[in-house]
Amino acid sequence: MTPPATERTARQDRAAILNLLEEIARAHYEKSAAGIAAPYAPHAVIFDLEPPLVHDGIDPKRKEAWLGIWEGPVTIATKGIEVKVTGDVAFAHGYVRLAGRKKGAARDVDFWMRQTVCLERRDGNWRIVHEHTSVPFYMDESLRPAFDLKP
Amino acid sequence: MTPPATERTARQDRAAILNLLEEIARAHYEKSAAGIAAPYAPHAVIFDLEPPLVHDGIDPKRKEAWLGIWEGPVTIATKGIEVKVTGDVAFAHGYVRLAGRKKGAARDVDFWMRQTVCLERRDGNWRIVHEHTSVPFYMDESLRPAFDLKP
Repeated sequence: MTPPATERTARQDRAAILNLLEEIARAHYEKSAAGIAAPYAPHAVIFDLEPPLVHDGIDPKRKEAWLGIWEGPVTIATKGIEVKVTGDVAFAHGYVRLAGRKKGAARDVDFWMRQTVCLERRDGNWRIVHEHTSVPFYMDESLRPAFDLKP
Repeated sequence: MTPPATERTARQDRAAILNLLEEIARAHYEKSAAGIAAPYAPHAVIFDLEPPLVHDGIDPKRKEAWLGIWEGPVTIATKGIEVKVTGDVAFAHGYVRLAGRKKGAARDVDFWMRQTVCLERRDGNWRIVHEHTSVPFYMDESLRPAFDLKP
């Protein structure tokens, strides 16, 4: 049986959004700041790992500088991404692993974070309008980020 | 001029969602674990400040224990909440201030966090299906949470 058209479309939309997240991962590996920035809407509301509380869109120059601190490729892997689509609005959440070695460092960076992305379809293309990335922190005296957790 | 029906509905939906967030704030002030838990869907995917990476829904018993560590009321204030609604799906993001004094503490806790909530309309009521709350951390040797930021 062929599923109804709306169901087929929702499936295509989910696939398009997962593909968009894959493109961001690939752009990290290729260290392409333009590739990383491409799927974001202008002035996307970005809640990132580092201060300030909010960043106004993805600035390719800032991203370029960030990519420059890594020795080789930056590896991004995703896990457990759940996508919900209705009409021209969607949200997705799951886990993102960031791995690589910073220039001059003796050890690799390698940890999992949580990520939520909210998207809108604009001129036929899904664009990230909001992204929230974080690591929880231990509520003890250390207050250290919980870099040791795995999904 | 009366705005078109869809626009009126979107405005009502936004108002309902902002009201739901206000109810969560009021329930914190009244220290009502049931009141805090009420607007969440069962098995809502919760990315909280503290580990693990994900919590499976809001557990009123766990929330009750958390409320018990505070001396007086827990004050929640929101700022800059933006809401996007389409059909039966919505998302919202903004800033939440948490203030209060823990039992036995000499000073108040008082800091701002970022919050993203994703909602679905179920049986006519908006329910939170995903929530992501975080504080960024300083990318220096301290790795301390940035409790000093204000929106």
